[in-house]
Amino acid sequence: MTEPTLYPESGFLRLKIDLAYDGTNYFGWAKQPDRRTVQEEFETALSTITQSKVETIVGGRTDAGVHATGQVIHVDVPDVTNLDELAFKLNRMLDEDIRIDNVAIAPEAFHARFSAIRRYYTYKIIDGNRPVPPLNRFDITPWYRTLDVDLLNAASALLVGEHDFAAYCKFREGSTTVRNLVRFDWIRDGQGLLIAELAADSFCYSMVRNLVGAAVCVAEGRFGTDWIAATLENRERISDSLVFPSRGLTLRQIDYPQETMNS
Amino acid sequence: MTEPTLYPESGFLRLKIDLAYDGTNYFGWAKQPDRRTVQEEFETALSTITQSKVETIVGGRTDAGVHATGQVIHVDVPDVTNLDELAFKLNRMLDEDIRIDNVAIAPEAFHARFSAIRRYYTYKIIDGNRPVPPLNRFDITPWYRTLDVDLLNAASALLVGEHDFAAYCKFREGSTTVRNLVRFDWIRDGQGLLIAELAADSFCYSMVRNLVGAAVCVAEGRFGTDWIAATLENRERISDSLVFPSRGLTLRQIDYPQETMNS
Repeated sequence: MTEPTLYPESGFLRLKIDLAYDGTNYFGWAKQPDRRTVQEEFETALSTITQSKVETIVGGRTDAGVHATGQVIHVDVPDVTNLDELAFKLNRMLDEDIRIDNVAIAPEAFHARFSAIRRYYTYKIIDGNRPVPPLNRFDITPWYRTLDVDLLNAASALLVGEHDFAAYCKFREGSTTVRNLVRFDWIRDGQGLLIAELAADSFCYSMVRNLVGAAVCVAEGRFGTDWIAATLENRERISDSLVFPSRGLTLRQIDYPQETMNS
Repeated sequence: MTEPTLYPESGFLRLKIDLAYDGTNYFGWAKQPDRRTVQEEFETALSTITQSKVETIVGGRTDAGVHATGQVIHVDVPDVTNLDELAFKLNRMLDEDIRIDNVAIAPEAFHARFSAIRRYYTYKIIDGNRPVPPLNRFDITPWYRTLDVDLLNAASALLVGEHDFAAYCKFREGSTTVRNLVRFDWIRDGQGLLIAELAADSFCYSMVRNLVGAAVCVAEGRFGTDWIAATLENRERISDSLVFPSRGLTLRQIDYPQETMNS
């Protein structure tokens, strides 16, 4: 891992950019050879406009198919005169499934990834084998069985807190799996959709979709709530079959401390 | 115009079907040669499943690009044993941008078009040149200027009531343009979107998108509210340039009298 670059190179300006995307047709945020990714599309557009090579740092790295309504990145660019014009030009170049919501001068020492103190995700499920509403079909996961929202909440509540989430994270050599999950709860909304809200300091790779899968397991009666406690205790990776699809997952917000934002 | 067929042919069963669609990739409901239409897709699927020629009658005929969350049709089919299974098979055959929400035996003498007593439409605008949220980009119309919701409501209120809406309807020989508009109002929602709700006994061709265009004209100060009264008075067709795009328009609900529904 490279050290965070706290200050832009001399002659460069650090921008904080808020953006949103429908992840359906992307292989996630991070650049990969021969794959359409959000990072690649964004950097290509920004490079063309600024006529310079740019490199972005992302606040919440999203996997293939995951959406964002509140993604945050930073990028160092040669001086730009008009930030609104830059946003306008980016939106004109990018496909409609990525939109730039705001371009601002970053606060001093701002780092999109390392300054972030909290990430918020939303997961949406339509259960009971009901048809997925066509206009919202890209961000809702269908589920065959009917799920009990109280059981979803009972299971999810057991996961809240600071734990070693090794059972819910793909193993990566040398990285910790201790996280502080500060929110994980469900509602059934006016249209009958099940909507989970999650928040943590940060999430490991595929952790949100693992947590959702575990709560659903309990809600449909495959395991009791005691199973949740056991997974946290024994830290053995739960089955990959319990990872829920990207389709229902959206990165909703990233928080930064007031100090970095106001300075 | 053909006479409404109040009863199915002997040996046939009349079904009332609720469906929803994302109209983006359809040339509207009604069949047209060499065009992808919702009616064509639906009838092809149902014909295949029932192994018989079927003909649908629609409650609210939607134009190219218009969406529906509460469309209603009727269709006469050879006896079917299991309605849920029919819905399941239809959804398996149809693309995900059309979904069958319910299949029921129609009440006696039910006619999707002629029994309908009220249609409800929703229109969504994102104004002030803001980026269209990617996950909702298919049913929101972007507008350059910022619109005043109070002015939108003032203009719209003048259109409510029973009027000759000739100024808002494409002319059709021999058909009346008198309609009873019972609701036309706007809110700005939590995300800052402008959302109009409209309801009438029925709407003429392109009438909703004309009404929206007229209200926007007043809201951005091109005309005063007196202009609205004048259009109703003189019944001269307003400019086609005031027809708003299909993209923001959704047929939300169709009401039928209790009598036809319960019998």
